[in-house]
Amino acid sequence: MQESPIRKLAPYAVAAKKSGKKIYHLNIGQPDILTPPAFMETVTNYSEKVLAYSPSEGIPELIQSIIQYYKGYEIDFEEDEILITNGGSEALQFSIIAIADAGDEILVPEPFYANYNSFCSAVDVNIVPVTCRAEEGFHLPLKSYIEGFITPKTKAIMVSHPGNPTGVVYTKEEVKLLCEIAIEHNLFIISDEVYREFVYDGLEFFSFANVKETEDRVVIIDSISKRFSACGARIGCIASKNKQLIAQILKLCQSRLCAPTLMQIGAIQLYNTQENYFKSVNKEYEKRRDIIYQSLNNIPNVICRKPTGAFYVIAKLPIEDAEDFSIFLLKDFSINNETVMLAPAKGFYSTPGLGNDEVRIAYILKEEDLISAMEILNKGLIQYLNNKNMLPK
Amino acid sequence: MQESPIRKLAPYAVAAKKSGKKIYHLNIGQPDILTPPAFMETVTNYSEKVLAYSPSEGIPELIQSIIQYYKGYEIDFEEDEILITNGGSEALQFSIIAIADAGDEILVPEPFYANYNSFCSAVDVNIVPVTCRAEEGFHLPLKSYIEGFITPKTKAIMVSHPGNPTGVVYTKEEVKLLCEIAIEHNLFIISDEVYREFVYDGLEFFSFANVKETEDRVVIIDSISKRFSACGARIGCIASKNKQLIAQILKLCQSRLCAPTLMQIGAIQLYNTQENYFKSVNKEYEKRRDIIYQSLNNIPNVICRKPTGAFYVIAKLPIEDAEDFSIFLLKDFSINNETVMLAPAKGFYSTPGLGNDEVRIAYILKEEDLISAMEILNKGLIQYLNNKNMLPK
Repeated sequence: MQESPIRKLAPYAVAAKKSGKKIYHLNIGQPDILTPPAFMETVTNYSEKVLAYSPSEGIPELIQSIIQYYKGYEIDFEEDEILITNGGSEALQFSIIAIADAGDEILVPEPFYANYNSFCSAVDVNIVPVTCRAEEGFHLPLKSYIEGFITPKTKAIMVSHPGNPTGVVYTKEEVKLLCEIAIEHNLFIISDEVYREFVYDGLEFFSFANVKETEDRVVIIDSISKRFSACGARIGCIASKNKQLIAQILKLCQSRLCAPTLMQIGAIQLYNTQENYFKSVNKEYEKRRDIIYQSLNNIPNVICRKPTGAFYVIAKLPIEDAEDFSIFLLKDFSINNETVMLAPAKGFYSTPGLGNDEVRIAYILKEEDLISAMEILNKGLIQYLNNKNMLPK
Repeated sequence: MQESPIRKLAPYAVAAKKSGKKIYHLNIGQPDILTPPAFMETVTNYSEKVLAYSPSEGIPELIQSIIQYYKGYEIDFEEDEILITNGGSEALQFSIIAIADAGDEILVPEPFYANYNSFCSAVDVNIVPVTCRAEEGFHLPLKSYIEGFITPKTKAIMVSHPGNPTGVVYTKEEVKLLCEIAIEHNLFIISDEVYREFVYDGLEFFSFANVKETEDRVVIIDSISKRFSACGARIGCIASKNKQLIAQILKLCQSRLCAPTLMQIGAIQLYNTQENYFKSVNKEYEKRRDIIYQSLNNIPNVICRKPTGAFYVIAKLPIEDAEDFSIFLLKDFSINNETVMLAPAKGFYSTPGLGNDEVRIAYILKEEDLISAMEILNKGLIQYLNNKNMLPK
């Protein structure tokens, strides 16, 4: 099993901090947005004297809250179609275990969230990458190209939508395309939609759960982590109209007894959060996205199509080795004793050799910090190219 | 994958409750002991505005608290030898994934905690049961008998010590016996010691981590759930002197990001709980154990050796089908409109046909309820045997 690719740079970050440098972390997805106070208010008011197990499938009130939430997206789930999990992570792990056996294959548009590798390799399931390109904003390739990767061992297509690390939001046509493929080749679709609210430019989000024809093939992965900036609560869910599949995954849930009781109780209140919370958060991220996108496009020879979702973007830089460049920024560069930490993108590809010249940038810092960080990235790149004699004449 | 064997009776319990019967739950391991108030006090005082991810390996202060705790058992762990997990459940699942591949085998003394089946079958690892007998108080069989089950595919021996569902506490000699086997056959030992504090009759608990010769082969599974009656927090840990193994399991921890942040913060305070908390809890359970043990031995033809640990006992009843008897108690029997719910023990055996005449009783109710429950069990058994014409003349 691979080590987390982002953690590889950690020792350089530690050394930089020790030397007194301030680091702008563009490398991680921990948002700075406040958790709605209703969460802690509820937790604080908990008065049971025994912190007991809760039902393996989740606390009924939380499941009801999530059913209501989905109705806002014109998705109808019933209570035996939703399971509460230890974050979106466990939701993914359990879905993979339920759908695929050792040796089976899952198609995943590449680049993809690096932990998909871990969830699959832990149970000897093979990810078959379907490469998407920075030049096309990481939108899906043609149907025939995708179908070329399907074998008798293929059990599912797994996507992050909106996309981590790409920021791509699939169009209605793309969603329907994958559903068509799923029907024709008898596949499941695991759709990781934890960034559902993070869609910009007035685009409408179209969920895989919105396609009636594939409702028994679609498994939705969800979480309160990003939606309500409550990453540390570890509350996610699995939702599917395929009651038989949910009944199988329930057995996995039963084996680990339950998700944290008190965090579920807090989560119930989060789902009562007002609509305007999402609007203001969304506006904030859209502003940050614009800063990053404009800054990147002001740097010569950087390729970056405008991302429309999540809070990540992948930029193709005019260099050979983005990991080497990221280490350079931490180790050998600073402006006013400040530098930036990037996530080299090769960890998000499983095809060897791809992504070496790309970085993922998370826009989870406030405006002024992002502006400073992008200034450092720009100057650092010029310096790096200069050092390598790679600057165009 | 099997359904949780205890859940099979759930519909009968629901029906009994609907009909107005009160049920004494002897079937589940949810203690009624109060969670030390320090937990909620700490959680309530949490003042961070963003509930953020914590380190994948666990919060350093919690790891330090656990290191101190183990010192009380003359066990020395260092900080890179402990990983915080989502309950003991995840600790078990991750240990199994790290140690065994699909098709490998793990020896487990039988009867065993039923979820071991789920953790293994989820990753296609096979449990090889080593049957222990009620007549011997579920102590281990001879060395040569155990060794007879070892094949080239055997990777580990997994035990619950003190034992769920048996209440057996292995002697120092038994612990050393398994360690000897582990060395001679190059095996790991996964020792689930979540009931470490629940040992009675002044017996001293001897941990698998107390054997120096096997320290690189032993993985300790632990949890705050039973120790501090904090089942709903879902905070467990994996501890091993085998740093290489811990480094591998850390990758699994990284893939699911972290255990719940706020519950870890509460757990730190639990580990500061005074010694006298354990003493009073221990005394309470010992009293309950005595009630159950004496009641069972007052029923003719019941076989039950005195259990010395955890809060379970397995009793062999003079009947053919304990599941049928458990359903009878829920469906067709009551005293003053009260009845009991038992856990048929066959779900704790993987050898077909074993345990059909046994039940597991959890002594997690207060004294007066236990006395009433055992009275109902006794009378119910007579009535059941009478109905079946099985009463001895």
